[in-house]
Amino acid sequence: MIDEVQMEFKANIDRIMGDIASITGGSITTNRPSYTIADAVARNYFFDIFEELDLSVSVDGAGNIRAAMAGREPELAPVLTGSHIDTVKNGGRFDGLVGTVGALECVRVFKENDYIPKRGVEIVIFSEEEATNFGVTLLGSKLLTGKVTPNELREIISDDGESADSVIRNAGFDPGEFNKKILTQGEVYAMIETHIEQGPILDRRGVSIGAVERIAGMETYRVVFRGVCGHAGATAMADRHDPMIGAAEVILEMKKVAENAESGTAVATVGKITARPGAANIIAREVEFNVDIRDAYDSSVTMLAGNLHILVERIAQKYGLEGESIRIAKSQAVALDREIVDMIQSVSQSLGISCMRVNSGAVHDTGMMAGVSRAGMIFVPSIDGASHCPEEDTKASDIENGVNVLIEIIKRLAEE
Amino acid sequence: MIDEVQMEFKANIDRIMGDIASITGGSITTNRPSYTIADAVARNYFFDIFEELDLSVSVDGAGNIRAAMAGREPELAPVLTGSHIDTVKNGGRFDGLVGTVGALECVRVFKENDYIPKRGVEIVIFSEEEATNFGVTLLGSKLLTGKVTPNELREIISDDGESADSVIRNAGFDPGEFNKKILTQGEVYAMIETHIEQGPILDRRGVSIGAVERIAGMETYRVVFRGVCGHAGATAMADRHDPMIGAAEVILEMKKVAENAESGTAVATVGKITARPGAANIIAREVEFNVDIRDAYDSSVTMLAGNLHILVERIAQKYGLEGESIRIAKSQAVALDREIVDMIQSVSQSLGISCMRVNSGAVHDTGMMAGVSRAGMIFVPSIDGASHCPEEDTKASDIENGVNVLIEIIKRLAEE
Repeated sequence: MIDEVQMEFKANIDRIMGDIASITGGSITTNRPSYTIADAVARNYFFDIFEELDLSVSVDGAGNIRAAMAGREPELAPVLTGSHIDTVKNGGRFDGLVGTVGALECVRVFKENDYIPKRGVEIVIFSEEEATNFGVTLLGSKLLTGKVTPNELREIISDDGESADSVIRNAGFDPGEFNKKILTQGEVYAMIETHIEQGPILDRRGVSIGAVERIAGMETYRVVFRGVCGHAGATAMADRHDPMIGAAEVILEMKKVAENAESGTAVATVGKITARPGAANIIAREVEFNVDIRDAYDSSVTMLAGNLHILVERIAQKYGLEGESIRIAKSQAVALDREIVDMIQSVSQSLGISCMRVNSGAVHDTGMMAGVSRAGMIFVPSIDGASHCPEEDTKASDIENGVNVLIEIIKRLAEE
Repeated sequence: MIDEVQMEFKANIDRIMGDIASITGGSITTNRPSYTIADAVARNYFFDIFEELDLSVSVDGAGNIRAAMAGREPELAPVLTGSHIDTVKNGGRFDGLVGTVGALECVRVFKENDYIPKRGVEIVIFSEEEATNFGVTLLGSKLLTGKVTPNELREIISDDGESADSVIRNAGFDPGEFNKKILTQGEVYAMIETHIEQGPILDRRGVSIGAVERIAGMETYRVVFRGVCGHAGATAMADRHDPMIGAAEVILEMKKVAENAESGTAVATVGKITARPGAANIIAREVEFNVDIRDAYDSSVTMLAGNLHILVERIAQKYGLEGESIRIAKSQAVALDREIVDMIQSVSQSLGISCMRVNSGAVHDTGMMAGVSRAGMIFVPSIDGASHCPEEDTKASDIENGVNVLIEIIKRLAEE
């Protein structure tokens, strides 16, 4: 009887909000990239509670944390739930934390009710989801699932010029262990992540829960135009080879390409741009920018990326520039487990919580986990769709609903 | 007899190139903003030589240096010659130094020949010509001639957030003195500056000397578009208010406006752009960029600036952004002294050096001096027109020609 179950296994929203306030120091804006002191402080917050709860904690070579509650049948593959604790620069407080603290709350509620599930339940906290250090999203789950190899970490370089291999080792983790052992099919029964939507669909419709069907595929490119630098006053317009003009044209053209894509859901974004040398009175020698391309269907992402290559080449030729576009990240679109999507909808209905099916424009570690296990995601609304900025916000009542749905989903999966 | 004069008063190009190599440490790329240690080292190089030459040195409240060689008739207003020693970031070695070292060479040649001119001759070295610290060009000559007041220095802020007033005071100068005394009409008889062209006209035509008729007027704007930041994957194209799109459109439209200007010589440049927060996977909240507008005629500059305002407003409306364009610098177009322009042509001809009339797209301290004295400029070619970059270069033979013309011009003016 669902209603009875819900009475027993109910999330304590004050405790959840207390966790989030403790981890963020009460701040709205957060800066907590993986492998930093801020990250270590947040990890310790969880480690202390994991110890109180008597969970078996392990940390892998990427710094991914797993905290295991044993099940009644230890030979069965466990159910995992969690998210990430790293943030973008000046990000919001709920991104990642709703899913990690939500997972913690799930295990706390089980323990409080002296409930031991059939399968083990593990809280998982992935490292470096946000690409803040190296421009590569989902690095922790990519290492865990073999999508990125330890050798490749030497070629992934931070803005400060340090390799991912070095940064991760300096933080005390040994990524070399993934040469011996990555996560394979069958080791995890299911992975469930609760997360804020990061878009406006749920908030606009006043719906509390999103049952995620697909996670968008993405490709990120670094585009560089090189031209001829010169004096802004003394170089006639006709004599210029100005890489800024090339960049501006690509930015506007990629907007049109995304808007006109067949899928109707494609997006292309330039959020980072640098002109060198970067002075008001000098025609730039070089302009570098990133193009982030996403859609729920890989074929559409591939089409947009193809357009980008053609545009960079054509526009370079047009203005006498040297142009290059290099892919720096890629993740494929993921269809999540259909039975879990249905389960999220039916559990929400039983609990009297509004729910709809949605796609995720953002990538998530659960997309990587979908390659080796059943996988599902529970979204809660982002007010005005704001994400990756201090304006990011979610109502406490929606977080409470999300964690209540999570608890019931984990309970059901852990009894399978 | 010009030919005899030239035999006596001949620039020593090895000595000039030696000065430049000493000041730049033999480097091609230079970083020497005013009010820095690098600036102080260059100043000391000149001070040592001024002492050897027994010149009367004075330094004003902007750090502008004047080194005076007394004339036969001390009551007459002196002739000034010089340029600046500050550079843009990663600039070339000849910008500013050709004119300052050339002025030094002129006085050295006079002294070697035991020539005492009728009027005093002063070497002048202006501070902060390049706007490297504060985005404001010609700050030293603007303070000296009252175009910028000491009070305004408190509102002129460096990229590091420090006011020009504070930076200049910390470098040991007291800009407050310009409240009591600025340079006025009649105090200087003439100002002559030798400078690299910073554009390709002389080099393309194989002409050694440019007799500058006009210095372009300029206005520099800081444009900011503010939109709504959001997740690059989770925000549909139709839901965006992306300031990067606004910036790209202004950049392309201002190119067209400059190209279509009646004058045929208008230029508009965006060489500096910043997206905030500036991450590949975040739609920017704010994009800030500078627009540098120039033409030989003020009416044309005004027309371009008017177009910029309209574009910023229209494009902000189009994409639901907040847009602002704030003028951060302005200097009017200057017609240089017609007799001096003619004199540069006739002296070049007498010396057998090719010469043509040109305009300056770049602004120069001599443009400020033209408000209070007769003023002229001698250009030497920039190879391929490269300027404000390490590729900047000028043939030693052209520098030699330029300084030989300078010496003769100073001699003639100092005898008037």
